[in-house]
Amino acid sequence: MDFKALNDLSYGMYIVTTKKGNKNVGCFINTTMQITSKNPILAISLNKENYTNEVLKETRKCAISILSEKAEKELISKFGYFSSREINKFEDRNYQNISELPVVLEDICGYIIGEVIRVIDVETHDIFLIRIQQAKKISEEVPMTYKYYHENLKGTAPKKAPTYQEGKTESKGNRYQCSICGYIYDDSKEEINFEDLPEDWTCPLCGVGKDKFIKL
Amino acid sequence: MDFKALNDLSYGMYIVTTKKGNKNVGCFINTTMQITSKNPILAISLNKENYTNEVLKETRKCAISILSEKAEKELISKFGYFSSREINKFEDRNYQNISELPVVLEDICGYIIGEVIRVIDVETHDIFLIRIQQAKKISEEVPMTYKYYHENLKGTAPKKAPTYQEGKTESKGNRYQCSICGYIYDDSKEEINFEDLPEDWTCPLCGVGKDKFIKL
Repeated sequence: MDFKALNDLSYGMYIVTTKKGNKNVGCFINTTMQITSKNPILAISLNKENYTNEVLKETRKCAISILSEKAEKELISKFGYFSSREINKFEDRNYQNISELPVVLEDICGYIIGEVIRVIDVETHDIFLIRIQQAKKISEEVPMTYKYYHENLKGTAPKKAPTYQEGKTESKGNRYQCSICGYIYDDSKEEINFEDLPEDWTCPLCGVGKDKFIKL
Repeated sequence: MDFKALNDLSYGMYIVTTKKGNKNVGCFINTTMQITSKNPILAISLNKENYTNEVLKETRKCAISILSEKAEKELISKFGYFSSREINKFEDRNYQNISELPVVLEDICGYIIGEVIRVIDVETHDIFLIRIQQAKKISEEVPMTYKYYHENLKGTAPKKAPTYQEGKTESKGNRYQCSICGYIYDDSKEEINFEDLPEDWTCPLCGVGKDKFIKL
């Protein structure tokens, strides 16, 4: 199986949120698609081990914020690589309570609010069917795609030949993986080898230090 | 409801195909997403009135071709605005029989072949869950997004001030809709008013003549 082909499927970048009692809960997702156009229904997919999945099955109401290309990687990392079970992801972030849901408003194109009308068990994941109750466009910013995120927010500037030649010692072709978020630093694709990065360098995805990286 | 917000959901561009006896069947879709990663399952959504939906429920096997930005609007129009019930969409197109399915290979990044493991009735549409059996990356071309398609393949070149000034008579702000595919020609957004277009002008989406347009 050539899994690389699956990388060419196109997705957007979203944060789905809900509220359990007074607790704001949410996570990053890229799998969202509209299923019907009349009285429209959306489908989103959430891993069963995900805390937001567990809570959404109870609350049956959620908001989906559509991230724009302006969205910061810190926002995406916070909602993508941590669990609402353990931390308050909404602290210091721009969100607002709308229809009793904590809607992330930070660098978004718009948001959708809806009610879960069905949960479909698909092995490791669940598909949630959501009847849209509100939808609001907030800005004319360009929606961020998953591809954009991978190409532009992983902390590696496009290679410039002069810098490449001057800044890089001979690459050993080593690869290092962040033990927190899974981000891979590949010497052969970077201008600077991992070992030569400054000590205060942090993971471009989740922000932890070099000491959290494991040599593959 | 502010439906404009829904336009900011991101999608790719795909052609899903299957084979009924000796008859090649298929249509354009933008709603495809991966649901699980282990022994992976995809979900696609198809309108119930769609002939490909009807046939896929029988054949239970399909190919999904991932279109690249090189894909021509004629390919997309053919698979998007006509029915395999009435025409042979594969005529004069680049496709190949792979695992007994007609896989469209024209300007694609890759393709996926799979088996329908479940059909989920969602009002006007069905979600097909497809277990991936084969996946192949074909080229390094950029996958086409739905946004790219709307912005680049609707036949309207970016406005250039000199042409705009010289070519355009005062806009009456009229709008005309293609009765075949639904494409809207909006005088206020074009360099040339609809009435001033040459008689051999054709719909940039489905290729029919000016006479098929209705003034809104």
